[in-house]
Amino acid sequence: MNNEELLAATAVDFWKISLGRLDKAFLSLDDAGLQKQVASGKNRVYYLLGHMAAVHDRMLPLLGFGERLHPELDEAFISNPDKTLPDTLSGDDLRAAWTEINTKLTSAIEALPAADWLKRHEAVPAEEFAKEPLRNRLAVLLSRAGHVTFHTGQMRLIKT
Amino acid sequence: MNNEELLAATAVDFWKISLGRLDKAFLSLDDAGLQKQVASGKNRVYYLLGHMAAVHDRMLPLLGFGERLHPELDEAFISNPDKTLPDTLSGDDLRAAWTEINTKLTSAIEALPAADWLKRHEAVPAEEFAKEPLRNRLAVLLSRAGHVTFHTGQMRLIKT
Repeated sequence: MNNEELLAATAVDFWKISLGRLDKAFLSLDDAGLQKQVASGKNRVYYLLGHMAAVHDRMLPLLGFGERLHPELDEAFISNPDKTLPDTLSGDDLRAAWTEINTKLTSAIEALPAADWLKRHEAVPAEEFAKEPLRNRLAVLLSRAGHVTFHTGQMRLIKT
Repeated sequence: MNNEELLAATAVDFWKISLGRLDKAFLSLDDAGLQKQVASGKNRVYYLLGHMAAVHDRMLPLLGFGERLHPELDEAFISNPDKTLPDTLSGDDLRAAWTEINTKLTSAIEALPAADWLKRHEAVPAEEFAKEPLRNRLAVLLSRAGHVTFHTGQMRLIKT
């Protein structure tokens, strides 16, 4: 690998390591565990799992990886806070969507040529990107990996 | 900037954005705020502030940026959990150390040539690094940025 490829591969590794830890935290909980709050009066794991699945699903078009798999998650898990809508999805529904989304997303991440990480992502207009080239796809990947560890830190507080 | 420089600059930006948010969360709290726990029965902010300062201080030699500034933080904030030793440092002591360490560290991070992020860090032996080139300085930077967002997620749960 050349330097460009090594830098991109190190960032992809960071994504995979971060995601792997949160995945383990989510999948270690049964349906009763999903109903626990990360702290008293705060989000349930059920909500966080749906929220993370929805945010990662949005990364697919954002990074040019194709259509979303589960846009229906947004209403319950992005547009509204926890416990404002009835729970219409089972724990198994959420776990399946989470795994399906991350599998497609991480495969596309692993396959992206190093130089393409420097391309514009879909949320930044071309004229702004010309002036601010650091608002690239790699910035999205790192920001979302940081979002993964942000919520992993909250998951670590759950009383067992 | 060439591609190598743009990739490294994007990662450095991620570090600075992540650190800036945690810095703001820490510095928004007065001494009484530092005594709050992130969740019932969990770490106080006082401990997290010392812990983060110590971890970032350790990054100086780890990344080849020179000697540590505050190795004395380790006993209270890394080797031992919260509330096992008496609090010997004031809030101002901790805030000053935190800011001093991050200023030196981030200056050195910003000044590092892009290709140097691919060099070995001090915690990986040369013979292992030859086989595992992704265990480089960039991996440390990203991992520690993820550690920053991990604890930022916990800070967000504090009852105000």
